[in-house]
Amino acid sequence: MKIAILGGTGSIGEGFALRWAGKHDILVCSREIDKAVNAAEEYTNILLYRGMQCCGITGCGNEKAIEEADVVVLSVPYKGVISLLQKLLPMFKDQIVISLVVPMTKNGLFEYTPPEQGSAALEIQEVLPKTVKVVSSYHNVSARKLAKLELSLDYDVVVCGDDENAKQTVMELTREIKSLRPLDGGGLASSYMIESLTPFLINLAIRNGLSDLGVKFV
Amino acid sequence: MKIAILGGTGSIGEGFALRWAGKHDILVCSREIDKAVNAAEEYTNILLYRGMQCCGITGCGNEKAIEEADVVVLSVPYKGVISLLQKLLPMFKDQIVISLVVPMTKNGLFEYTPPEQGSAALEIQEVLPKTVKVVSSYHNVSARKLAKLELSLDYDVVVCGDDENAKQTVMELTREIKSLRPLDGGGLASSYMIESLTPFLINLAIRNGLSDLGVKFV
Repeated sequence: MKIAILGGTGSIGEGFALRWAGKHDILVCSREIDKAVNAAEEYTNILLYRGMQCCGITGCGNEKAIEEADVVVLSVPYKGVISLLQKLLPMFKDQIVISLVVPMTKNGLFEYTPPEQGSAALEIQEVLPKTVKVVSSYHNVSARKLAKLELSLDYDVVVCGDDENAKQTVMELTREIKSLRPLDGGGLASSYMIESLTPFLINLAIRNGLSDLGVKFV
Repeated sequence: MKIAILGGTGSIGEGFALRWAGKHDILVCSREIDKAVNAAEEYTNILLYRGMQCCGITGCGNEKAIEEADVVVLSVPYKGVISLLQKLLPMFKDQIVISLVVPMTKNGLFEYTPPEQGSAALEIQEVLPKTVKVVSSYHNVSARKLAKLELSLDYDVVVCGDDENAKQTVMELTREIKSLRPLDGGGLASSYMIESLTPFLINLAIRNGLSDLGVKFV
C-alpha cells in the first residue's frame, strides 16, 4: 500500500515511516517539500544503517502524496487541521484517512476540548468527501517509543471507524508494528473516548512522575 | 479503619470485604439487614476456610454502618444512589466516601450518561455535606477477579478527589490489595474520565471477545 504521512517530519510521523517501511511505500509529507525530502532521507539512512536495503521512503508535498496514497495518516495538531484539509480537498477521493488528531488545550494541566461534532474524527469526516473513510486511532502511542525501532510497543491500540473494511485495514497495519495489539473500538462516534484519553494520560504522567504512557487493557 | 461497604452483598462488595478483611473492620451493609448479615457470614467462612482466624467482617444496615465508618464505599448502581444518599444524609459527618458509581445506559452497547454536574462523583459530592470527602475510584476493577483471592490484580487504579488526605488514604487502601497500583488522577472534576472508561471497557470486551477488562498504563 501507499501510505502518506501528513506531519511526517514530526516524531510520530518518523515512527510510522520507520515501522512501516519495507512493507509499504511511505510518502513523508510536509507543506515544505525540502523538509519532507530531508526527513525521508534521514529516515532512509536510519534504516540503511540498520541493514535494510530498500525501504521505499519518499519525501513530497501534501497534495501529491494525498493524490497517490491509499492511506493518509493525519499526524498534525488539531489547530489548523480543518483549514489544511479544506485546502487539500480536491486531492481526496476514496482514501482511508487515519486521524491521530486530539483537540486539547493546556490550562495548567491538559484538557480535552472537542469541537461541537463531539470529536476531531467526526469533524474531519464532516469536512472530507463521504467516499473518504476516516478511521480514528494511534492517539495514545508514545511518539518517542514508536521512533525507537529497538523498542517493542506493548500497547493496545483502539481503532474506531464507520467503514468496516477501512477499520480492518488499520487493524492490520497495527499488527505489523511489533507488539501493538489492535482492538475494535466501534464506530467513529466512539472516537471521543480515545481522543480524550490523550490529555488524561499526559496529566497522569505529570502527576505521577511517569512518562510516555500508553494503555493496555488487561 | 472502619470501612462500610454499601452494596456490600454484590460481587464488587464481596471482593473489597475479602481483600481488606483482617487489615480493617469491615461493615457489609444492605437495606435488608438479614441479607447483610448472611453475606458477612459467607465472606467470613471463605476467609476461615483459607486459614484466617479473625477477619472482622460484620453485617449491618446502612444507617448504623455509615454512622460508625471512617470510610464508606459506594458500590451501588447509579440509578437510585442520590435518593439513597438523601435518605441517609443525617448519618454523614466527615467520612471519606469512595464512589464507584458509573452513570451509564445500555443502548445496544453501553453509553456513559453523566448527570449535569459532569460525573456521578460530582453529583454525589453536591448532595453530601461539605465535610464529607468524596473520592472517585475503582470503577474499572473487575468484580469477579477482585472476589477471587487467589488472583493478583495487575491493574492500575486511578484515584480522583479534591481532598488530598482522603485521596492519599484511598491510594493507601489500594496498595493493600495485591498488585493494584494507585495513580493520582487529580481532582474530582476529572472523575468523568475514569467513570466513562467503564462503558468503554465493557464495549471493548464485547466487541473483541475479551472479558473482565481493566486498565494498565504502560
